Amino acid sequence: MSKLKGNCIIAQSGGPTAVINASVCGVIQEAMKHAEIEEIYGAINGILGVLHREIIDLRKESPRTIEGLKSTPSSALGSCRYKLKDEDYEAVMEAFKKYNIRYFFYAGGNDSMDTANRVNKLASEKGYELRVIGVPKTVDNDLPVTDHCPGYGSVIRHNAIAIRDAGRDTEAIGTTDKVKIFETMGRDTGWIAAGSALAREREDDAPHLIYLPERAVNIDKFLHDVQKVYDRLGYALIAVSEGLVGEDGEPLSASATGVDLDAFGHKQYGDVGGYLAEVVKNRLKLKARWEKPGTIQRVAMDRASRVDIEEAYLVGKTAVQKALEDKSGFMVTLVREKCQEYRISMGLVELEKVANKRKPVPAQFINEEGNDVTEAFLSYARPLIGGPLHPYVRLKKVRI
Amino acid sequence: MSKLKGNCIIAQSGGPTAVINASVCGVIQEAMKHAEIEEIYGAINGILGVLHREIIDLRKESPRTIEGLKSTPSSALGSCRYKLKDEDYEAVMEAFKKYNIRYFFYAGGNDSMDTANRVNKLASEKGYELRVIGVPKTVDNDLPVTDHCPGYGSVIRHNAIAIRDAGRDTEAIGTTDKVKIFETMGRDTGWIAAGSALAREREDDAPHLIYLPERAVNIDKFLHDVQKVYDRLGYALIAVSEGLVGEDGEPLSASATGVDLDAFGHKQYGDVGGYLAEVVKNRLKLKARWEKPGTIQRVAMDRASRVDIEEAYLVGKTAVQKALEDKSGFMVTLVREKCQEYRISMGLVELEKVANKRKPVPAQFINEEGNDVTEAFLSYARPLIGGPLHPYVRLKKVRI
Repeated sequence: MSKLKGNCIIAQSGGPTAVINASVCGVIQEAMKHAEIEEIYGAINGILGVLHREIIDLRKESPRTIEGLKSTPSSALGSCRYKLKDEDYEAVMEAFKKYNIRYFFYAGGNDSMDTANRVNKLASEKGYELRVIGVPKTVDNDLPVTDHCPGYGSVIRHNAIAIRDAGRDTEAIGTTDKVKIFETMGRDTGWIAAGSALAREREDDAPHLIYLPERAVNIDKFLHDVQKVYDRLGYALIAVSEGLVGEDGEPLSASATGVDLDAFGHKQYGDVGGYLAEVVKNRLKLKARWEKPGTIQRVAMDRASRVDIEEAYLVGKTAVQKALEDKSGFMVTLVREKCQEYRISMGLVELEKVANKRKPVPAQFINEEGNDVTEAFLSYARPLIGGPLHPYVRLKKVRI
Repeated sequence: MSKLKGNCIIAQSGGPTAVINASVCGVIQEAMKHAEIEEIYGAINGILGVLHREIIDLRKESPRTIEGLKSTPSSALGSCRYKLKDEDYEAVMEAFKKYNIRYFFYAGGNDSMDTANRVNKLASEKGYELRVIGVPKTVDNDLPVTDHCPGYGSVIRHNAIAIRDAGRDTEAIGTTDKVKIFETMGRDTGWIAAGSALAREREDDAPHLIYLPERAVNIDKFLHDVQKVYDRLGYALIAVSEGLVGEDGEPLSASATGVDLDAFGHKQYGDVGGYLAEVVKNRLKLKARWEKPGTIQRVAMDRASRVDIEEAYLVGKTAVQKALEDKSGFMVTLVREKCQEYRISMGLVELEKVANKRKPVPAQFINEEGNDVTEAFLSYARPLIGGPLHPYVRLKKVRI
């Protein structure tokens, strides 16, 4: 087998996660095993590092540091949300040539896969021998084809823990703080909000309602739902995705200032939780509070899913193996085997098929009323958090 | 020693914490050792449970459940924020007589100590033999006299973990998300915001600025501070207390709707983080986001401080011991011994001296600029979180 010899570069892109460094660790440790890969470089702040030639030598890091990446959250190489301009692609190619980079591993989400795809195509057009493999990463879990995305299991494990705790809190102080809105990440899809259902251990446990951007929210129906839970339990905890939309198709709460647009033209939403808490206070006259863990949900290493860490490592490792099999222009995928137990194998998909595409939560995972998830979703998501939450007790409360 | 014989009752009040159940566990396990204490009752939802005679028999709970309270957050008995009316005190006394309650242990903060104090006084006036001991509990850490309050070490450990993670996140994606505001709890005092300094491991680690309600915020100075950090690092993470006030003495962001007032007449503030993020966006033209973990910071059992759990248990245990020494009308205090190592002993203070009183963060714990804490604060707070955070690695980043 004649293999391409040269240097490799790895870069991280988009929002950090608890496990994206585990993927980088997988790439580095696998790359070190193969003589075809000479130098192992890292680009600082994603593709920007290539563009600005801010490149580091990962062979200069100690094995202990590389191994420690598995238990260090966020993007150790730095990240970016930069959309390459046409002329930038030429500059990237120049840098690759200058440093004899023949293997390019890009860890990121939908936008990053677009970047990787275009780099791959340009190399091919120019006749520059290059292997490009995308390493899937997104807490949003919205990459198509792959069963799920590294980063997702950990964010929903964090939220399952946080919502179970917040639910116990609301249950205890429901005498005063009646309604709590918990705003999860998820700008375009409701995967993260859906995952909050994993906080439940018993039927009446929080979250009592879950709303996803896949279903437009009718405020009257929402208030009716909340009142119903409140009438039954005396309190309510509601998980909502930051990207909820109203029936007019507009985000329930969109911040419209210019600096809110990122380089890909996405609006940054938020404060849906604040908006809904106000609506509950004003219309239902129930004291409501809200919380928004924000980025802490995506980089919580101590709450990361064991399964997610392992899979993130594996996709990194697999990316290198596939590149050395002369594959290029693909993203590694997680393929769930059709068996009772949870088992995953590694697959590949053309970058073309995932670039800039989003997988919404499918209809069979959302209940008919659009205010909760289904059993099918729970079966899908439960293995991803890597085991049950720490056990809590509950008093029997025998009255005298 | 002639000891009062009869039943005891324990109740939990105010905001839940990660360790208030450990205090209840301490009370129950200690009470079980003493023949003078016959039945061990729990009041559902604090003093409301006594008022409405919603009382449970804690001897009916299994030893395993009682022990499990140490690792279960929130208030297992339920809580309340109910200010007793004059006529309610009579009703409480009637209930105590009816159930032969001779020992009353009330776990709570400033307001709860006022309730306990008034119950104690009324019993004394009526010639009803009763021992009342307050069990300190508040994440706010603002009870006077006691060195610190059970619940505090755990909330600041949660936030140290969350802010370290959020800081790594901002450092990685600072190319896009320049400024992050992290809103901590702390309505009246800045203890929790101050504790966020424990997230730092190196000089430039987050939080880069810390603002407490003890110092009025001048927005121009605030923006100047943020810009300075941004110019140096390229990003900034700022910890702010939810109760920040402006130079006019008004909360930076007060929600003014009627249902926001709790039974003690406290206004519920919030969204200071949102307000400051907007100011940063509009005036500095830097993309800013904000997070507000809300109640999840106070009930995060998996992030609770080992020291805090132990101390919470001990104050519960000590409350029973002191009551059996015929003490009444006191709150248990944590007394820090004057030695190099961190060592705590148990003390007592008259409820009168803590009821409705608040201990602000003292001047020597706040830096001159009013945008950070001092070394003296760090020495005070560090032992409370019960050990260092889980180690993370950092790449050396040797450029090629």
